[in-house]
Amino acid sequence: KINKERLWDSLMEMAKIGPGIAGGNNRQTLTDEDAEGRALFQKWCEAEGMTMGVDTMGNMFMTREGTDPDALPVYMGSHLDTQPTGGKYDGVLGVLGALEAVRTMNDLDIKTKHPIVIANWSNEEGTRFAPAMLASGVFAGIHTQDWAYDRVDAKGKRFGDELERIGWKGDEPVGARKMHAMLELHIEQGPILEAEGKDIGVVTHGQGLRWVQCTVTGKESHTGSTPMPMRKNAGRGLARITELVHEIAMKHQPNAVGAIGHIDVYPNSRNIIPGKVVFTVDLRSHLPEIIDAMLDEFYEKAPKLCEEIGVGLETEVVGQFDPPAFDEGLVTSIRNAAETLGYSHMDIVSGAGHDACWINDVAPTAMIMCPCVDGLSHNEAEEISPEWAAAGTDVLLHAALETAQI
Amino acid sequence: KINKERLWDSLMEMAKIGPGIAGGNNRQTLTDEDAEGRALFQKWCEAEGMTMGVDTMGNMFMTREGTDPDALPVYMGSHLDTQPTGGKYDGVLGVLGALEAVRTMNDLDIKTKHPIVIANWSNEEGTRFAPAMLASGVFAGIHTQDWAYDRVDAKGKRFGDELERIGWKGDEPVGARKMHAMLELHIEQGPILEAEGKDIGVVTHGQGLRWVQCTVTGKESHTGSTPMPMRKNAGRGLARITELVHEIAMKHQPNAVGAIGHIDVYPNSRNIIPGKVVFTVDLRSHLPEIIDAMLDEFYEKAPKLCEEIGVGLETEVVGQFDPPAFDEGLVTSIRNAAETLGYSHMDIVSGAGHDACWINDVAPTAMIMCPCVDGLSHNEAEEISPEWAAAGTDVLLHAALETAQI
Ligand SMILES: NC(=O)NCCC(=O)O
Ligand SMILES: NC(=O)NCCC(=O)O
Repeated sequence: KINKERLWDSLMEMAKIGPGIAGGNNRQTLTDEDAEGRALFQKWCEAEGMTMGVDTMGNMFMTREGTDPDALPVYMGSHLDTQPTGGKYDGVLGVLGALEAVRTMNDLDIKTKHPIVIANWSNEEGTRFAPAMLASGVFAGIHTQDWAYDRVDAKGKRFGDELERIGWKGDEPVGARKMHAMLELHIEQGPILEAEGKDIGVVTHGQGLRWVQCTVTGKESHTGSTPMPMRKNAGRGLARITELVHEIAMKHQPNAVGAIGHIDVYPNSRNIIPGKVVFTVDLRSHLPEIIDAMLDEFYEKAPKLCEEIGVGLETEVVGQFDPPAFDEGLVTSIRNAAETLGYSHMDIVSGAGHDACWINDVAPTAMIMCPCVDGLSHNEAEEISPEWAAAGTDVLLHAALETAQI
Repeated sequence: KINKERLWDSLMEMAKIGPGIAGGNNRQTLTDEDAEGRALFQKWCEAEGMTMGVDTMGNMFMTREGTDPDALPVYMGSHLDTQPTGGKYDGVLGVLGALEAVRTMNDLDIKTKHPIVIANWSNEEGTRFAPAMLASGVFAGIHTQDWAYDRVDAKGKRFGDELERIGWKGDEPVGARKMHAMLELHIEQGPILEAEGKDIGVVTHGQGLRWVQCTVTGKESHTGSTPMPMRKNAGRGLARITELVHEIAMKHQPNAVGAIGHIDVYPNSRNIIPGKVVFTVDLRSHLPEIIDAMLDEFYEKAPKLCEEIGVGLETEVVGQFDPPAFDEGLVTSIRNAAETLGYSHMDIVSGAGHDACWINDVAPTAMIMCPCVDGLSHNEAEEISPEWAAAGTDVLLHAALETAQI
């Protein structure tokens, strides 16, 4: 079993970098805080005798050698970047849990045939630069690197420029590495495991996602002196689409979710009718046919809702992935590890997207989940117990050892 | 008659300060651009032999002496600050039209019994610091100066600090001046004069206004992994209230208007359900009983719409004024001036709030309006013709001369 206190201490130490305003973290991708978090992780890994590789997307790979020079590595990992108002565990547990697994192997002097690599994937959150899981997506060949470099944040800064600025653009060609397997430990970010009283979620599938960025165009004019019939209020387009998205998701509930999280209003003045509103619709399901049905309904109804009130609508897909089904052999070995270690467990579908969802396209991949309090995530109040973190990390260690062959 | 070309040249010269991105202006109150605009106006007035007073709210008063030392001054003026995406004429015409009137008096060597004062009122627009017409409101005793100094912009900067920073905090106690009368020339900012083919709007009344700032509180959580029934989506509160405000205003149309122009979403991330949305509702009518009826309906229904979806609502009035009725004597002298000069005219209600609406509480006040293209204002594409500007300024000159007694 892993060292529960050491794992927790490392989680708390990392959380000191980029503190939030309400007990969580603001360590967004490619900020100075991200660079600081990366350096601390590097230092910890090197202290365990691991060697670093960094690719041209800033993905970090820390290697512990295996006994067979020809064997492909077994990867573990997740991401160290956070939401602007994020928790201390989303992503971080998967990286520092993997580190704790390696520390335990070192404590017990365990040798594996396959090398072990811990990965920290750049820009998993997708908040600063859409889409989410950007760098694992480039690694898996879903996006080109050029396209990824050109993603811009709200201030117009390019991903490529910011990666150079913080000094974490590596030399290694992205996606060149071959993997024997990849295992990602993550908090559930939903309420099911806690409600069912289970220590471990054995993730069999993930949800697919579509991010549809909408631009509603009205006409900027004076809120006081523009007669009601002459108005083209882009804010009303947002209002109608907000409710449409909710209704569409409710129709397919519990197999789907939908909401709008990001909204920018122009020019955003109390006495100007909004001339333009830009926002991103997030629609998800683990069933591909439901994603299609939701999108069909959205593309049929949203333009009409705008037309009726005289405003224009343009849409662009800025993020998408299909529901992944994880590797059956790895899923079984996770389930077996939980069983052997005496942890209660259940099969579960991941509500969020994860780097594992992309890596699943290029290597056998699977995920382990642990509960989080009230299912709350993407909130500074995100919380887990040291016991939950330890149980997940124990399962990660055992599944990794089985996969990497002692 | 005034000099049409000189007036237009001055308008174009002022518009070079704080240019917008689409042909208009961004010269928001208490910015460096505002300071630059003030200095240019001061220079122009002093070249006409006027002397400057500045009060503790940054209101500028440029005086042309009268022949009777005991006679109270006749004021003309408006404001030089603009919206973030404002036009070149909103407010500016009223200040530079007054300057052109004085220039014409000087050209013709006209002496008046009452002194003439041109006023430039600080922060008329209310975009950077709510409420609108802040400094004329303090002048008229509606707000205290301490309260006004404590207004903060979106970055948390205080009005009082910014006024000192740009160097335009004067020594003169605000509101100490007594006025014989005040005349404000302004573009209509609505479509009526152009549609009716009239050169001049004789403003008899203004609309009253309420700005109700709303804070909807939900719960930040993950858009992917939070089950639909567990969501508290503050964005849906905004959506429902947006449509409510529109419906309430439509009920009383054409005697009322209503919209939401300013919206801030927290934390504004694509994959976080909004935990908080702050926005300002703008409701107006020239009939006090309609304002009351609209507010009653709003306060009755808005909390219910939020309660139904599990989000909280807090409201605060951040701007309000009652519908003003302007001084009958001055209104008549404006109507007579238009008639004498041969300009077509009609009586009109002002859709927007103006400094004249507050000054009306402490001195006989009236307003002159000229048309603007398509009724468009609070938009960089705001446009007027040099002929319209000249007609309005001619009427201003004649009404001022009648009031100040040649
Ligand atoms: N795990 C996680 O929150 N990933 C961000 C991508 C998503 O929105 O699902
Ligand atoms: N004239 C003008 O646009 N004033 C701003 C105050 C208002 O919103 O009516």
